[in-house]
Amino acid sequence: MFEAKFQSFADASSSNDSAARVAALRDELARRNLDGFLVPRADAHQNEYVPKSAERLAWLTGFTGSAGFAIALAEEAAIFVDGRYVIQVRQEIDGGIFKPVDVAETAPPAWLAEHAREGARIGYDPWVHTSGQIERFAKACEGRKIELVALETNPIDALWVDRPPAPAGQVVIHPAKYAGETAAVKIRKLRDALKGADAALMSDPHAICWAFNIRGADVAHTPIALAFAWLPREGAPALYIDDAKLDTKTRGSLEKFLTLRAPSALIDDLTGAGKRGETVMFDAATAPAKLVETLRAAGGKPRVTEDPAALPKAIKNRAELQGAREAHIRDGQALTRFLAWFSEAAPKGALTEISAAEALETFRRENGDLRDISFPTISAFGEHAAIPHYRVTEKSNLKIGKGVYLVDSGAQYLDGTTDVTRTVVVGRASKQLKDHFTRVLKGHIAVARAVFPKGVSGAQLDAFARRYLWEAGLDFDHGVGHGVGSYLSVHEGPQRISKLGTTPLVPGMILSNEPGYYRAGEYGVRLENLVIVEKREIPGAEREMYGFETITLAPFDLNCVEPRLMSAEETFWLNRYHAHLRKTLSPLVDTKTRKWLRDATRAI
Amino acid sequence: MFEAKFQSFADASSSNDSAARVAALRDELARRNLDGFLVPRADAHQNEYVPKSAERLAWLTGFTGSAGFAIALAEEAAIFVDGRYVIQVRQEIDGGIFKPVDVAETAPPAWLAEHAREGARIGYDPWVHTSGQIERFAKACEGRKIELVALETNPIDALWVDRPPAPAGQVVIHPAKYAGETAAVKIRKLRDALKGADAALMSDPHAICWAFNIRGADVAHTPIALAFAWLPREGAPALYIDDAKLDTKTRGSLEKFLTLRAPSALIDDLTGAGKRGETVMFDAATAPAKLVETLRAAGGKPRVTEDPAALPKAIKNRAELQGAREAHIRDGQALTRFLAWFSEAAPKGALTEISAAEALETFRRENGDLRDISFPTISAFGEHAAIPHYRVTEKSNLKIGKGVYLVDSGAQYLDGTTDVTRTVVVGRASKQLKDHFTRVLKGHIAVARAVFPKGVSGAQLDAFARRYLWEAGLDFDHGVGHGVGSYLSVHEGPQRISKLGTTPLVPGMILSNEPGYYRAGEYGVRLENLVIVEKREIPGAEREMYGFETITLAPFDLNCVEPRLMSAEETFWLNRYHAHLRKTLSPLVDTKTRKWLRDATRAI
Repeated sequence: MFEAKFQSFADASSSNDSAARVAALRDELARRNLDGFLVPRADAHQNEYVPKSAERLAWLTGFTGSAGFAIALAEEAAIFVDGRYVIQVRQEIDGGIFKPVDVAETAPPAWLAEHAREGARIGYDPWVHTSGQIERFAKACEGRKIELVALETNPIDALWVDRPPAPAGQVVIHPAKYAGETAAVKIRKLRDALKGADAALMSDPHAICWAFNIRGADVAHTPIALAFAWLPREGAPALYIDDAKLDTKTRGSLEKFLTLRAPSALIDDLTGAGKRGETVMFDAATAPAKLVETLRAAGGKPRVTEDPAALPKAIKNRAELQGAREAHIRDGQALTRFLAWFSEAAPKGALTEISAAEALETFRRENGDLRDISFPTISAFGEHAAIPHYRVTEKSNLKIGKGVYLVDSGAQYLDGTTDVTRTVVVGRASKQLKDHFTRVLKGHIAVARAVFPKGVSGAQLDAFARRYLWEAGLDFDHGVGHGVGSYLSVHEGPQRISKLGTTPLVPGMILSNEPGYYRAGEYGVRLENLVIVEKREIPGAEREMYGFETITLAPFDLNCVEPRLMSAEETFWLNRYHAHLRKTLSPLVDTKTRKWLRDATRAI
Repeated sequence: MFEAKFQSFADASSSNDSAARVAALRDELARRNLDGFLVPRADAHQNEYVPKSAERLAWLTGFTGSAGFAIALAEEAAIFVDGRYVIQVRQEIDGGIFKPVDVAETAPPAWLAEHAREGARIGYDPWVHTSGQIERFAKACEGRKIELVALETNPIDALWVDRPPAPAGQVVIHPAKYAGETAAVKIRKLRDALKGADAALMSDPHAICWAFNIRGADVAHTPIALAFAWLPREGAPALYIDDAKLDTKTRGSLEKFLTLRAPSALIDDLTGAGKRGETVMFDAATAPAKLVETLRAAGGKPRVTEDPAALPKAIKNRAELQGAREAHIRDGQALTRFLAWFSEAAPKGALTEISAAEALETFRRENGDLRDISFPTISAFGEHAAIPHYRVTEKSNLKIGKGVYLVDSGAQYLDGTTDVTRTVVVGRASKQLKDHFTRVLKGHIAVARAVFPKGVSGAQLDAFARRYLWEAGLDFDHGVGHGVGSYLSVHEGPQRISKLGTTPLVPGMILSNEPGYYRAGEYGVRLENLVIVEKREIPGAEREMYGFETITLAPFDLNCVEPRLMSAEETFWLNRYHAHLRKTLSPLVDTKTRKWLRDATRAI
């Protein structure tokens, strides 16, 4: 039957030990003459998925969300989360120890400045904060006589007796037919992006894996190898990586164009560069404060900007784009089988959020090419669909009855990463649901159909997705789209469709197009496809024009569409999209699914 | 007959003396042991319209555009202008002395860093640069051993023998019925915006005039008094203003709530605040580097951010909004008379760009309430209409024949400031013109009809105005809208509709809505109304919703509209707009105009 191999629905959270652990931490801090300690949910690369050995926040507090921050002082402690986690944090932590704070109301630096006593010494582990993060703390504490102290060792590691070892997933060479370019070509591009610096210290494992055409297995859902890299203006790059991750063959392949170095050599090497007075680029989003300060202390000049690989990685080459299209056909086939199966199984009343997620993962696995899912599936019925980042656990698991079911899922294939959301109705759609669904769909189509000149960024397109909701006094509180990697992270910058997205869109970028609408306590609608930015030829055009090629292939639930709210152009787009995916997927699915697909993609 | 009293079409420019003046400047620099000098087109308040006494750039170079920057070195000199002025600058300056540079290609700091010799000492007048501008020069020169030297006196002033005196226009109290709030209430609002600072040094005359309910007559087209002000957290504010601008009665009114100080006392007073260690807010956009550095040198803490009056001034009160509506009826009446007259006079072939501008100003003056025009009228025929910021002179003046005529103009009334653009065709509109005009109109209507939730900024609406042009591969290279003052500047921040407009729109703000399309060498289309941000009640709304009330009243040329390109909603908006303005203006115009207006506003 169906089963999940790449995700768990267990309630991992426990705050039973929190009181003892915080007490032990306070003793340790006192021994070190410290008045407090900063505990981010972060590893040394600011990864979205962190290895178990870096889950210090969960160890100390019991909180298991994907973003959070704790501050422990001698007398009090607080945990900071964003709007997604305000409910979950109260369920997971011991409220007698940690006060939950909404970051939108009080950010950690402001809280520290207010709550730490004058003269306090606050410790932090400079490996798990960026220099920008520490600067924000320093600025908030300015004039308050609070000292921030970078620690040589993390005090939690001294107490965490059964702390898992750092991961050592095997590194594999990412084949040229998927990567599309050799590492040598990519390294040349990166050198062009150094802009006068002597070298770049690369700290983003996604960028490093992209640059050197490798993939790893150190964290969940994203095939990265945790590593640092040194990219000098001249000479071979160096890769700082645990030797245990490399077999002889991989080592041999890599040593053709780079030098392998032990991670422990990084501090000495950076000190050397500093002594030579070198100017070194760091990635503001991921570089540990430790590395920036090591260079500075030795006399070097850190230039904290963007990873030189960020933009070239985002602009996919022909092989990556072709891979993405093929991955999406494979993925659309699995999702369509799931939707067909769901349309028959759900009305019988035997499904739950977990069993549906297990079924979807199974359909994906049965294709044989699945490497992983790209994030834990959001399988949400009814009111859970109104929580944009809902994650089902055995405790929260709802039985699926009549109503709205939202499934946001994705996969990792060697040739590409997918991310797709569909919202379907079990039973009949109410007039109100049809109205909301159709407004979201119209926004989705407005983005999909958009044409825009070179230079336009995602911020300028964001409102296209919202306009029809705004007309009804509605909106949603997340961006319209994020970048997506190529067999890498499902969330990739710098491009995005959101009011914060100021990076101009360039042909070859892959983005999600996922407007939504959430009715708290009732239901939610989100409709997500991935799109590729492509050139457009328009007769008489005076500018270089771009548009989007939609690559996700799965039907939208026509039972939720109110055709009278759709313009002729929108209906044309929807019918053409459905006809295209029917033609593409029909030969690839079983007879029963094919029959369902014919009806599900009928012209309206 | 018609005449212009508030604008001149003379060619003021002359570069005849440029060679001698630059030579004299170089001698003066050598005497002061300097290797170069920075010459911005700026006064001590970074005003858009500068007094004649501050026209140092024009005196030195002959360039009369509204934005420019020169750098004179011992051996070479350059003048920097933006895209608007690349042609004009070549016509006005002596190319043997100044090399014209497009700022988009090379900004002055980068040019200086490249062209000044190592060890060079470059002088600047710290009264006419902001501290941010000087920081950008310092940053560009970092590591190049170029020293920037703040000068006590401007070397040009030592050479400019017939330099006009500083203006001393009479200050008048702006009546409460137009201002809508007393100065006392406004001062309280400003104190709330100090956010912990001890005081604000106000350097923007618009903000000062708004805060103290005064108006002046120091520069063209904007009724401001040049002054600085000191707003302490407690106690009376101080106004630093030339006593010659105040009569006894005005002095008496002002002294009820503020202290009058001589401008010459400002440096001493700031030094005092610095010695007391005070934290002082400065306006990043207008505060002279001189003042920021004076405070810092004395031991104070400058906080260079936004003028505390910027936002309260932008959010108009009920009296200001009612005034704006009435000013727009008066202005619409004049513009409609002009358009009716133009439609008869232009086809006879006797008009020129200048005579049309004179006629429009005359119609405005005949209403009796006109205080000034709000900027020199853009009266542009044919290919001149393709230059967004065209300014007609006797030399450029075209005869108006068959083709496109664009008129962008505005007025200053005691109760409000106007800004309106119409594009009309003389003779028949080509199919292509109709297509372009209708796409611009559709963009204009999309903005006018927009509804959006609280928190949305102009950046998110900018693309609404462009979408229909983008669909044809077209675009325009200016923002969609700028803020407009209340009997103050026609260009006011911080709100704007442009990809740079990140200030959330708030009910009471006034903005322009002016998409365009420009076909170089042929014609241009721009359609501009002013709008007020207003609250909208939408049944079932879950957010606080806003929209725009259009207040400009003048017909769009239906001869240029292609109805088949318009949606039903767009046609409905246009017909309703025309019906509304016909009803409002018909009783106010002569029989002949009324008859024309009936036809010009017919339903389509």
